[in-house]
Amino acid sequence: MEIKVLKNILKDNAHKAQDNNIHLKSKNISTLNLLASPGAGKTSIIIKTAEKLKNEKNIVVIEGDLESTIDSQKLAELGIPAIQINTGGGCHLDANMVGHALEAMDVPKDSILFIENVGNLVCTAAYDLGEDMKVVILSSAEGHDKPYKYPLIFENADAVILNKTDLMPYVDFSRDLFYKGVRALNENCPIFEVSCRDGSGLDEWTQWLKSKVM
Amino acid sequence: MEIKVLKNILKDNAHKAQDNNIHLKSKNISTLNLLASPGAGKTSIIIKTAEKLKNEKNIVVIEGDLESTIDSQKLAELGIPAIQINTGGGCHLDANMVGHALEAMDVPKDSILFIENVGNLVCTAAYDLGEDMKVVILSSAEGHDKPYKYPLIFENADAVILNKTDLMPYVDFSRDLFYKGVRALNENCPIFEVSCRDGSGLDEWTQWLKSKVM
Repeated sequence: MEIKVLKNILKDNAHKAQDNNIHLKSKNISTLNLLASPGAGKTSIIIKTAEKLKNEKNIVVIEGDLESTIDSQKLAELGIPAIQINTGGGCHLDANMVGHALEAMDVPKDSILFIENVGNLVCTAAYDLGEDMKVVILSSAEGHDKPYKYPLIFENADAVILNKTDLMPYVDFSRDLFYKGVRALNENCPIFEVSCRDGSGLDEWTQWLKSKVM
Repeated sequence: MEIKVLKNILKDNAHKAQDNNIHLKSKNISTLNLLASPGAGKTSIIIKTAEKLKNEKNIVVIEGDLESTIDSQKLAELGIPAIQINTGGGCHLDANMVGHALEAMDVPKDSILFIENVGNLVCTAAYDLGEDMKVVILSSAEGHDKPYKYPLIFENADAVILNKTDLMPYVDFSRDLFYKGVRALNENCPIFEVSCRDGSGLDEWTQWLKSKVM
Protein backbone atom coordinates (compact mmCIF):
# COMPACT_ATOMS: atom_id res chain seq x y z
CA MET A 1 0.00 0.00 0.00
CA GLU A 2 2.69 2.51 0.98
CA ILE A 3 4.76 1.47 -2.02
CA LYS A 4 1.86 2.12 -4.38
CA VAL A 5 1.38 5.61 -2.98
CA LEU A 6 5.08 6.31 -3.28
CA LYS A 7 5.05 5.22 -6.91
CA ASN A 8 2.13 7.53 -7.67
CA ILE A 9 3.94 10.41 -6.03
CA LEU A 10 7.07 9.77 -8.08
CA LYS A 11 5.04 9.40 -11.30
CA ASP A 12 3.15 12.64 -10.67
CA ASN A 13 6.45 14.31 -9.83
CA ALA A 14 8.06 13.11 -13.08
CA HIS A 15 5.18 14.59 -15.11
CA LYS A 16 5.39 17.90 -13.33
CA ALA A 17 9.19 17.93 -13.69
CA GLN A 18 8.76 17.49 -17.44
CA ASP A 19 6.32 20.44 -17.52
CA ASN A 20 8.86 22.58 -15.66
CA ASN A 21 11.61 21.55 -18.05
CA ILE A 22 9.53 22.38 -21.15
CA HIS A 23 8.67 25.78 -19.67
CA LEU A 24 12.30 26.53 -18.77
CA LYS A 25 13.60 25.34 -22.14
CA SER A 26 11.09 27.55 -23.97
CA LYS A 27 12.85 30.52 -22.36
CA ASN A 28 16.35 29.09 -22.94
CA ILE A 29 16.93 28.88 -19.17
CA SER A 30 19.63 26.43 -18.00
CA THR A 31 18.69 24.83 -14.70
CA LEU A 32 20.93 23.20 -12.11
CA ASN A 33 19.63 21.19 -9.15
CA LEU A 34 22.23 21.53 -6.35
CA LEU A 35 22.30 18.53 -4.01
CA ALA A 36 24.36 18.26 -0.82
CA SER A 37 24.46 17.58 2.90
CA PRO A 38 23.66 20.47 5.26
CA GLY A 39 26.59 22.87 5.31
CA ALA A 40 28.50 21.54 2.30
CA GLY A 41 28.53 24.99 0.72
CA LYS A 42 25.65 25.11 -1.77
CA THR A 43 24.92 28.81 -1.23
CA SER A 44 28.62 29.69 -1.34
CA ILE A 45 29.01 27.89 -4.67
CA ILE A 46 26.07 29.88 -6.06
CA ILE A 47 27.54 33.17 -4.82
CA LYS A 48 31.02 32.47 -6.20
CA THR A 49 29.63 31.25 -9.55
CA ALA A 50 27.45 34.34 -9.84
CA GLU A 51 30.49 36.56 -9.19
CA LYS A 52 32.41 34.84 -12.00
CA LEU A 53 29.56 34.97 -14.52
CA LYS A 54 27.86 38.26 -13.64
CA ASN A 55 28.94 40.01 -16.84
CA GLU A 56 27.90 37.14 -19.05
CA LYS A 57 24.76 35.53 -17.64
CA ASN A 58 21.76 36.44 -15.55
CA ILE A 59 21.66 34.24 -12.42
CA VAL A 60 18.43 33.45 -10.56
CA VAL A 61 18.00 31.18 -7.53
CA ILE A 62 15.25 29.07 -5.99
CA GLU A 63 16.18 28.36 -2.36
CA GLY A 64 14.82 25.27 -0.62
CA ASP A 65 14.86 25.00 3.18
CA LEU A 66 12.66 23.44 5.84
CA GLU A 67 12.45 26.79 7.58
CA SER A 68 14.09 30.24 7.53
CA THR A 69 15.02 32.71 4.78
CA ILE A 70 18.70 32.95 5.75
CA ASP A 71 20.08 31.92 2.36
CA SER A 72 17.65 33.85 0.15
CA GLN A 73 18.32 36.99 2.22
CA LYS A 74 22.07 36.46 1.86
CA LEU A 75 21.66 36.22 -1.94
CA ALA A 76 19.30 39.21 -2.13
CA GLU A 77 21.83 41.34 -0.24
CA LEU A 78 24.34 40.50 -2.99
CA GLY A 79 21.87 41.47 -5.68
CA ILE A 80 21.13 37.90 -6.77
CA PRO A 81 17.36 37.43 -7.28
CA ALA A 82 16.12 34.55 -5.14
CA ILE A 83 12.79 33.07 -4.13
CA GLN A 84 12.49 30.98 -0.98
CA ILE A 85 10.56 27.73 -0.71
CA ASN A 86 10.02 26.63 2.89
CA THR A 87 9.04 22.96 2.89
CA GLY A 88 7.81 23.17 6.49
CA GLY A 89 9.55 19.95 7.50
CA GLY A 90 9.64 18.31 4.06
CA CYS A 91 12.99 16.66 3.39
CA HIS A 92 13.34 17.57 -0.30
CA LEU A 93 11.97 19.87 -2.97
CA ASP A 94 9.56 18.41 -5.51
CA ALA A 95 8.63 19.47 -9.02
CA ASN A 96 5.32 20.93 -7.88
CA MET A 97 7.00 23.29 -5.40
CA VAL A 98 9.39 24.42 -8.12
CA GLY A 99 6.46 24.91 -10.52
CA HIS A 100 4.79 27.24 -8.01
CA ALA A 101 8.04 29.16 -7.54
CA LEU A 102 8.34 29.59 -11.32
CA GLU A 103 4.81 31.03 -11.38
CA ALA A 104 5.69 33.44 -8.57
CA MET A 105 8.90 34.77 -10.15
CA ASP A 106 9.42 35.66 -13.78
CA VAL A 107 12.83 34.19 -14.58
CA PRO A 108 14.32 36.19 -17.48
CA LYS A 109 15.10 34.44 -20.78
CA ASP A 110 18.61 32.98 -21.19
CA SER A 111 19.26 32.89 -17.41
CA ILE A 112 21.01 30.26 -15.35
CA LEU A 113 18.62 29.02 -12.66
CA PHE A 114 20.15 27.42 -9.58
CA ILE A 115 17.78 25.37 -7.46
CA GLU A 116 19.32 24.89 -4.02
CA ASN A 117 17.67 21.79 -2.64
CA VAL A 118 17.16 20.96 1.06
CA GLY A 119 20.40 19.75 2.69
CA ASN A 120 19.99 15.99 2.37
CA LEU A 121 21.97 13.30 0.53
CA VAL A 122 19.11 10.81 0.45
CA CYS A 123 15.59 12.01 -0.31
CA THR A 124 16.56 14.77 -2.74
CA ALA A 125 18.13 12.14 -5.03
CA ALA A 126 14.75 10.61 -5.93
CA TYR A 127 12.90 13.74 -7.14
CA ASP A 128 13.56 15.39 -10.50
CA LEU A 129 12.59 19.06 -10.51
CA GLY A 130 12.80 19.79 -14.22
CA GLU A 131 16.51 20.58 -14.16
CA ASP A 132 19.05 20.07 -16.95
CA MET A 133 21.77 18.94 -14.57
CA LYS A 134 22.16 17.57 -11.07
CA VAL A 135 25.26 18.87 -9.33
CA VAL A 136 26.34 17.11 -6.12
CA ILE A 137 28.46 19.16 -3.70
CA LEU A 138 30.47 17.53 -0.92
CA SER A 139 32.61 19.25 1.71
CA SER A 140 36.00 17.64 2.33
CA ALA A 141 35.14 17.77 6.05
CA GLU A 142 32.39 15.20 5.44
CA GLY A 143 34.92 12.51 4.55
CA HIS A 144 35.84 10.48 1.48
CA ASP A 145 33.44 7.62 2.23
CA LYS A 146 30.23 9.38 1.23
CA PRO A 147 29.93 7.88 -2.30
CA TYR A 148 30.00 4.42 -0.69
CA LYS A 149 27.30 5.33 1.83
CA TYR A 150 24.99 7.48 -0.35
CA PRO A 151 25.39 5.90 -3.80
CA LEU A 152 22.21 7.02 -5.61
CA ILE A 153 22.96 10.71 -5.47
CA PHE A 154 26.47 10.21 -6.90
CA GLU A 155 25.19 7.75 -9.51
CA ASN A 156 22.81 10.36 -10.94
CA ALA A 157 25.18 13.35 -10.76
CA ASP A 158 26.04 15.29 -13.92
CA ALA A 159 28.89 16.93 -12.04
CA VAL A 160 30.44 16.59 -8.58
CA ILE A 161 32.01 19.50 -6.70
CA LEU A 162 34.38 18.66 -3.85
CA ASN A 163 34.25 21.88 -1.84
CA LYS A 164 36.25 23.20 1.15
CA THR A 165 39.52 21.77 -0.19
CA ASP A 166 41.22 24.36 2.05
CA LEU A 167 40.26 22.11 5.00
CA MET A 168 42.10 19.10 3.51
CA PRO A 169 45.24 19.54 5.68
CA TYR A 170 43.10 19.36 8.84
CA VAL A 171 40.80 16.42 8.06
CA ASP A 172 41.24 12.76 7.14
CA PHE A 173 40.25 12.78 3.49
CA SER A 174 41.63 10.32 0.94
CA ARG A 175 41.33 11.72 -2.58
CA ASP A 176 42.06 8.24 -3.97
CA LEU A 177 39.22 6.58 -2.08
CA PHE A 178 36.84 9.42 -2.93
CA TYR A 179 37.55 9.27 -6.68
CA LYS A 180 37.41 5.47 -6.61
CA GLY A 181 34.01 5.65 -4.89
CA VAL A 182 32.57 8.16 -7.36
CA ARG A 183 33.98 6.36 -10.41
CA ALA A 184 32.51 3.02 -9.32
CA LEU A 185 29.06 4.67 -9.56
CA ASN A 186 29.55 7.23 -12.29
CA GLU A 187 32.29 6.81 -14.88
CA ASN A 188 32.05 10.10 -16.70
CA CYS A 189 30.85 12.99 -14.55
CA PRO A 190 33.45 15.73 -14.09
CA ILE A 191 34.74 16.22 -10.54
CA PHE A 192 35.81 19.75 -9.56
CA GLU A 193 37.94 20.39 -6.49
CA VAL A 194 37.18 23.88 -5.26
CA SER A 195 37.44 26.12 -2.23
CA CYS A 196 34.95 28.97 -1.92
CA ARG A 197 37.21 30.33 0.81
CA ASP A 198 40.50 30.63 -1.14
CA GLY A 199 38.95 30.60 -4.62
CA SER A 200 40.91 27.65 -5.98
CA GLY A 201 39.23 25.54 -8.65
CA LEU A 202 36.35 27.96 -9.24
CA ASP A 203 37.63 28.97 -12.70
CA GLU A 204 37.65 25.34 -13.87
CA TRP A 205 34.10 24.83 -12.57
CA THR A 206 32.69 28.00 -14.14
CA GLN A 207 34.48 27.32 -17.45
CA TRP A 208 32.84 23.91 -17.59
CA LEU A 209 29.47 25.37 -16.65
CA LYS A 210 29.80 28.00 -19.39
CA SER A 211 30.61 25.28 -21.93
CA LYS A 212 27.36 23.57 -20.96
CA VAL A 213 25.00 26.54 -20.88
CA MET A 214 26.20 29.05 -23.47
CA MET B 1 -4.55 10.00 1.42
CA GLU B 2 -0.76 10.23 1.69
CA ILE B 3 -1.11 12.03 5.01
CA LYS B 4 -3.25 9.25 6.38
CA VAL B 5 -0.71 6.62 5.39
CA LEU B 6 2.07 8.67 6.95
CA LYS B 7 0.15 8.93 10.19
CA ASN B 8 -0.36 5.16 10.27
CA ILE B 9 3.35 4.61 9.70
CA LEU B 10 4.25 6.97 12.55
CA LYS B 11 1.66 5.38 14.87
CA ASP B 12 2.93 1.87 14.11
CA ASN B 13 6.48 3.12 14.62
CA ALA B 14 5.61 4.63 18.02
CA HIS B 15 4.16 1.31 19.20
CA LYS B 16 7.19 -0.62 18.05
CA ALA B 17 9.53 1.96 19.61
CA GLN B 18 7.74 1.47 22.93
CA ASP B 19 8.21 -2.31 22.64
CA ASN B 20 11.93 -1.80 21.98
CA ASN B 21 12.21 0.53 24.97
CA ILE B 22 10.47 -1.92 27.31
CA HIS B 23 12.76 -4.74 26.14
CA LEU B 24 15.90 -2.59 26.55
CA LYS B 25 14.84 -1.30 29.96
CA SER B 26 14.18 -4.85 31.18
CA LYS B 27 17.90 -5.48 30.64
CA ASN B 28 18.96 -2.12 32.10
CA ILE B 29 20.39 -1.06 28.73
CA SER B 30 20.79 2.70 28.15
CA THR B 31 20.12 3.61 24.53
CA LEU B 32 21.25 6.68 22.59
CA ASN B 33 19.96 7.58 19.13
CA LEU B 34 22.74 9.54 17.38
CA LEU B 35 21.44 12.01 14.80
CA ALA B 36 23.58 14.07 12.43
CA SER B 37 24.35 15.11 8.87
CA PRO B 38 26.61 12.86 6.79
CA GLY B 39 30.18 13.21 8.01
CA ALA B 40 29.52 15.08 11.25
CA GLY B 41 31.45 12.46 13.22
CA LYS B 42 28.90 10.02 14.66
CA THR B 43 31.18 7.00 14.41
CA SER B 44 34.14 8.95 15.82
CA ILE B 45 32.07 10.04 18.82
CA ILE B 46 31.13 6.40 19.46
CA ILE B 47 34.78 5.26 19.21
CA LYS B 48 36.06 8.02 21.53
CA THR B 49 33.26 7.46 24.05
CA ALA B 50 33.94 3.72 24.05
CA GLU B 51 37.64 4.37 24.72
CA LYS B 52 36.77 6.54 27.73
CA LEU B 53 34.22 4.13 29.19
CA LYS B 54 35.73 0.75 28.29
CA ASN B 55 36.61 -0.14 31.88
CA GLU B 56 33.21 0.84 33.23
CA LYS B 57 30.55 -0.04 30.69
CA ASN B 58 29.92 -2.49 27.90
CA ILE B 59 29.33 -0.60 24.61
CA VAL B 60 27.29 -2.05 21.76
CA VAL B 61 26.40 -0.36 18.46
CA ILE B 62 23.66 -0.58 15.86
CA GLU B 63 24.90 1.05 12.64
CA GLY B 64 22.43 2.50 10.16
CA ASP B 65 23.47 3.25 6.56
CA LEU B 66 21.81 3.14 3.16
CA GLU B 67 24.59 0.89 1.91
CA SER B 68 28.03 -0.40 2.97
CA THR B 69 29.48 -1.85 6.16
CA ILE B 70 32.31 0.69 6.45
CA ASP B 71 31.40 1.93 9.93
CA SER B 72 30.50 -1.43 11.49
CA GLN B 73 33.77 -2.89 10.19
CA LYS B 74 35.69 0.05 11.67
CA LEU B 75 34.04 -0.58 15.05
CA ALA B 76 34.56 -4.35 14.88
CA GLU B 77 38.29 -3.82 14.22
CA LEU B 78 38.42 -1.86 17.47
CA GLY B 79 36.66 -4.64 19.35
CA ILE B 80 33.35 -2.78 19.65
CA PRO B 81 30.44 -5.15 18.88
CA ALA B 82 28.30 -3.71 16.08
CA ILE B 83 25.46 -4.85 13.88
CA GLN B 84 24.82 -3.17 10.53
CA ILE B 85 21.39 -2.19 9.22
CA ASN B 86 21.42 -1.31 5.51
CA THR B 87 18.23 0.57 4.72
CA GLY B 88 18.74 0.05 0.96
CA GLY B 89 17.93 3.65 0.14
CA GLY B 90 15.74 4.41 3.17
CA CYS B 91 16.53 7.83 4.62
CA HIS B 92 16.21 6.93 8.33
CA LEU B 93 16.09 3.99 10.72
CA ASP B 94 12.71 3.00 12.12
CA ALA B 95 11.74 1.11 15.26
CA ASN B 96 11.00 -2.06 13.33
CA MET B 97 14.52 -2.21 11.87
CA VAL B 98 15.97 -1.69 15.34
CA GLY B 99 13.67 -4.41 16.72
CA HIS B 100 15.03 -6.89 14.17
CA ALA B 101 18.60 -5.89 15.02
CA LEU B 102 17.89 -6.50 18.72
CA GLU B 103 16.61 -9.99 17.86
CA ALA B 104 19.76 -10.68 15.81
CA MET B 105 22.25 -9.59 18.50
CA ASP B 106 22.04 -10.34 22.20
CA VAL B 107 22.95 -7.04 23.84
CA PRO B 108 24.37 -7.79 27.32
CA LYS B 109 22.60 -6.45 30.42
CA ASP B 110 23.70 -3.02 31.71
CA SER B 111 25.24 -2.01 28.36
CA ILE B 112 25.18 1.34 26.63
CA LEU B 113 23.65 0.90 23.18
CA PHE B 114 24.51 3.52 20.54
CA ILE B 115 22.23 3.59 17.52
CA GLU B 116 23.98 5.46 14.73
CA ASN B 117 21.18 6.68 12.49
CA VAL B 118 21.44 7.40 8.74
CA GLY B 119 23.20 10.73 8.08
CA ASN B 120 20.21 13.05 7.72
CA LEU B 121 19.01 16.07 9.74
CA VAL B 122 15.42 15.81 8.55
CA CYS B 123 13.75 12.40 8.31
CA THR B 124 15.54 10.82 11.26
CA ALA B 125 13.98 13.44 13.55
CA ALA B 126 10.46 12.04 13.12
CA TYR B 127 11.07 8.38 14.09
CA ASP B 128 11.57 7.23 17.66
CA LEU B 129 13.52 3.97 17.87
CA GLY B 130 12.97 3.11 21.53
CA GLU B 131 15.92 5.16 22.75
CA ASP B 132 16.31 6.90 26.10
CA MET B 133 18.02 9.93 24.59
CA LYS B 134 18.43 11.63 21.25
CA VAL B 135 21.89 13.12 20.78
CA VAL B 136 22.37 15.54 17.87
CA ILE B 137 25.93 15.90 16.55
CA LEU B 138 26.97 18.83 14.36
CA SER B 139 30.37 19.48 12.81
CA SER B 140 31.61 23.07 13.08
CA ALA B 141 32.34 22.87 9.33
CA GLU B 142 28.59 22.67 8.69
CA GLY B 143 28.05 26.22 9.97
CA HIS B 144 26.24 27.87 12.86
CA ASP B 145 22.95 28.31 11.01
CA LYS B 146 21.80 24.68 11.15
CA PRO B 147 19.44 25.05 14.16
CA TYR B 148 17.58 27.75 12.21
CA LYS B 149 17.28 25.57 9.11
CA TYR B 150 16.61 22.16 10.72
CA PRO B 151 14.68 23.07 13.86
CA LEU B 152 12.83 19.82 14.71
CA ILE B 153 15.94 17.76 15.31
CA PHE B 154 17.38 20.37 17.72
CA GLU B 155 14.02 20.86 19.42
CA ASN B 156 13.86 17.17 20.35
CA ALA B 157 17.51 16.76 21.34
CA ASP B 158 18.42 15.56 24.85
CA ALA B 159 21.99 16.66 24.21
CA VAL B 160 23.86 18.43 21.40
CA ILE B 161 27.49 17.75 20.55
CA LEU B 162 29.33 20.38 18.52
CA ASN B 163 32.14 18.30 17.01
CA LYS B 164 35.28 19.17 15.03
CA THR B 165 35.96 22.28 17.11
CA ASP B 166 39.58 21.94 15.92
CA LEU B 167 38.33 23.24 12.54
CA MET B 168 36.92 26.44 14.11
CA PRO B 169 39.94 28.61 13.13
CA TYR B 170 39.44 27.68 9.47
CA VAL B 171 35.67 28.04 9.06
CA ASP B 172 33.10 30.80 9.58
CA PHE B 173 31.30 29.59 12.68
CA SER B 174 29.69 31.94 15.18
CA ARG B 175 29.33 30.28 18.57
CA ASP B 176 26.94 33.05 19.64
CA LEU B 177 24.55 32.49 16.75
CA PHE B 178 24.75 28.71 17.17
CA TYR B 179 23.90 28.82 20.89
CA LYS B 180 21.18 31.39 20.27
CA GLY B 181 19.67 29.13 17.59
CA VAL B 182 19.72 26.02 19.78
CA ARG B 183 18.39 27.86 22.86
CA ALA B 184 15.44 29.32 20.91
CA LEU B 185 14.31 25.73 20.27
CA ASN B 186 15.56 23.90 23.33
CA GLU B 187 16.20 25.75 26.57
CA ASN B 188 17.77 23.03 28.65
CA CYS B 189 19.70 20.45 26.67
CA PRO B 190 23.42 20.41 27.43
CA ILE B 191 25.72 21.45 24.57
CA PHE B 192 29.18 19.83 24.47
CA GLU B 193 31.97 21.28 22.35
CA VAL B 194 34.32 18.47 21.41
CA SER B 195 37.02 17.48 18.98
CA CYS B 196 37.51 13.80 18.28
CA ARG B 197 40.79 14.78 16.61
CA ASP B 198 42.47 16.59 19.53
CA GLY B 199 40.35 15.07 22.30
CA SER B 200 39.11 18.32 23.79
CA GLY B 201 35.71 18.28 25.48
CA LEU B 202 35.36 14.50 25.44
CA ASP B 203 35.79 14.22 29.25
CA GLU B 204 32.88 16.61 29.86
CA TRP B 205 30.67 14.67 27.43
CA THR B 206 31.49 11.25 28.90
CA GLN B 207 31.11 12.53 32.48
CA TRP B 208 27.63 13.76 31.64
CA LEU B 209 26.78 10.51 29.87
CA LYS B 210 27.95 8.52 32.90
CA SER B 211 25.77 10.66 35.16
CA LYS B 212 22.79 9.71 33.01
CA VAL B 213 23.38 5.99 32.58
CA MET B 214 25.07 4.70 35.73
